[in-house]
Amino acid sequence: MADAAYTYDYSPALVPAADERGEGMWRWRRLLPLDGADVFPLPVGGTPLVAPPRLRAALDLPGLLLKDETRSFSGSNKDRATALCLADAARRGAPAVVAASSGNLAVSCAAGAAAVGIPAHLFVSTHTVSPHKVALMRAYGATVWRVDGPYEDAYRLSEAVCARLGWYNRNTGTNPLAVQGKKTVAFEVWEQMGRTLPDLAYVPVGDGTTIAAFVVGCEELVRCGVAARVPRVIGVQATGAAPLVAAYAAGRVDWTPVPSTTFADGIGVGDPFFGRAALEGVRRTDGEYVAVDDDAIRAAIALLAQTSGLLAEPAGAAALAGAIAHCAQHRPGEERVLVLVTGTGLKDQRWLPQGGGAAIEVGPSLDAFLAALERADGSDST
Amino acid sequence: MADAAYTYDYSPALVPAADERGEGMWRWRRLLPLDGADVFPLPVGGTPLVAPPRLRAALDLPGLLLKDETRSFSGSNKDRATALCLADAARRGAPAVVAASSGNLAVSCAAGAAAVGIPAHLFVSTHTVSPHKVALMRAYGATVWRVDGPYEDAYRLSEAVCARLGWYNRNTGTNPLAVQGKKTVAFEVWEQMGRTLPDLAYVPVGDGTTIAAFVVGCEELVRCGVAARVPRVIGVQATGAAPLVAAYAAGRVDWTPVPSTTFADGIGVGDPFFGRAALEGVRRTDGEYVAVDDDAIRAAIALLAQTSGLLAEPAGAAALAGAIAHCAQHRPGEERVLVLVTGTGLKDQRWLPQGGGAAIEVGPSLDAFLAALERADGSDST
Repeated sequence: MADAAYTYDYSPALVPAADERGEGMWRWRRLLPLDGADVFPLPVGGTPLVAPPRLRAALDLPGLLLKDETRSFSGSNKDRATALCLADAARRGAPAVVAASSGNLAVSCAAGAAAVGIPAHLFVSTHTVSPHKVALMRAYGATVWRVDGPYEDAYRLSEAVCARLGWYNRNTGTNPLAVQGKKTVAFEVWEQMGRTLPDLAYVPVGDGTTIAAFVVGCEELVRCGVAARVPRVIGVQATGAAPLVAAYAAGRVDWTPVPSTTFADGIGVGDPFFGRAALEGVRRTDGEYVAVDDDAIRAAIALLAQTSGLLAEPAGAAALAGAIAHCAQHRPGEERVLVLVTGTGLKDQRWLPQGGGAAIEVGPSLDAFLAALERADGSDST
Repeated sequence: MADAAYTYDYSPALVPAADERGEGMWRWRRLLPLDGADVFPLPVGGTPLVAPPRLRAALDLPGLLLKDETRSFSGSNKDRATALCLADAARRGAPAVVAASSGNLAVSCAAGAAAVGIPAHLFVSTHTVSPHKVALMRAYGATVWRVDGPYEDAYRLSEAVCARLGWYNRNTGTNPLAVQGKKTVAFEVWEQMGRTLPDLAYVPVGDGTTIAAFVVGCEELVRCGVAARVPRVIGVQATGAAPLVAAYAAGRVDWTPVPSTTFADGIGVGDPFFGRAALEGVRRTDGEYVAVDDDAIRAAIALLAQTSGLLAEPAGAAALAGAIAHCAQHRPGEERVLVLVTGTGLKDQRWLPQGGGAAIEVGPSLDAFLAALERADGSDST
């Protein structure tokens, strides 16, 4: 099912006209397998494209653009996939929806299921799930099955449950609608950039769905005849979970699974479900794969927050870390460089960067403040 | 300065045409004191208006609409005020921007200041601020002054600092641009509802800025000649911080300050800066003030999350709690009922509702799951 290929009768008529009505991802209904606008009640997509002047200056990247997916209903780009899957589940009258995840996918699925009124059953591993994430899933009313075993056990059980009970399977590795939903981010970037695609695009890679979908979206715009060529797409993995980086460099379409050791849980995938599509897709764009270590990701979170006012989670800032490392070697000059910011840092305080602004104790008088300010300025300049 | 009145040469020409370009709050630049689109780089406003089918059914309110302000860059409606104030500060070449707050306003100010590149100095009380909020402010690079005293001391010190050093004052009680920025939410609702205003609007009330601004926005649309009448605006306070409820019932424009005892920190204001404008504004709309206790707010958070997939903080769900209580007495029937959801619940896990979905331990086999499911279903039905 994961390889099911959706194709369309590509032509400019599938692309919304500039003055056509319709907001968010359903604006692209003619390039989707179904139009969920009347089924899925939460607005999805239509996230901002940000031109960050201070970050551009700091990195000497005058053509840098950020696609800010943190503004989605559950704070991550998983919501695009959730919307399409849950609209499908609602149309089919599914008795329940199932996902195995301990992160953003499960939280997104819980929120989307609540919105359409289908019970959500989420399978998490007791070995890896954080209590905060379980609390978030439960807040949306989902039933959380805490499976006594590693993540793979939770995943296998969720698949077995769907097979036995006929519950709707939202797992990204199984449900081809995930890629279809997520590809809409490329469409929006194209429209927000004045109906043109960027030259370079940096995309974080965990299970590979986001980057595979981004490439598909760009390719479909070319097939529709509204874009001249796809951007070079650069996949960014965390050094602690980078099986595709080595595989890509070796020209292979398979990879050696690794244990994940990165703190960036959203991309901490050592054996990606969509690895093949993620490798082949990037290769078709003449792209690259790069790895960034956890310190580089932490630095990117801090830089993004402190120059742009945009707080990302580790996986959400990984593409920026990759862009910084990669652009330092391959100066893009005036090229238009897109960085996908996939998830919010507001959701989990463990993600907050250290070493930001100072916190200073002070008495309530102006004199006390002025003395403390002088001391602080003095320590800044030493 | 707080009473500075901005007026405009009201006419339909100040309102954007349906096909006019421009997104977010700067779309309304002809009804704002300044157009910050070229100064403030973070997109602001343009938040979704949600028609939640399951919540409508649960409450028997077929005309219910939610204005979802959680989708803003720092997760709250403070960002509208921040955007206008920071655009003003940037235009003036302010050396620093100052706010006294221990909550969303400070986080919003930290984010906005980072985006425009002005150092932010935030004054918090060591008595009340949460370590998580301080960490958020610092993550955006702000300097946090932990004032040894109650909130009032932090506020007074921040005002004294601005007076002495010429730093830009973002305090809502002092800077009239806060109301000007926040009024844009009413404009957007009007446009999203097909260029018409709702019949009833429920708005949470802490310091009173949000509701005063909402009334101003509605009145300006009437003055422009594009709306027939303002909605009846219902101010919602937490029972533990409800000075305006008693004052309104007594027909007064002043109030007796109270100590705040509500858990809804965003509206836990016992002596509101904008109390007078908040009382007079609601009175002009023939509105009302209602109080909801903390349990009702907790129930509203859970109901909103579990029927609509929208997670609000306590202050953000207070207006819904008020709508539930008020509509139970005054059946609005088919009237169009707007509820303002002012801030996200993703930001702080202490805000998550209890008693949502179950968390169930289970072994990794399908048989173990099926047995556990049977037990869970059995306990549901007893």
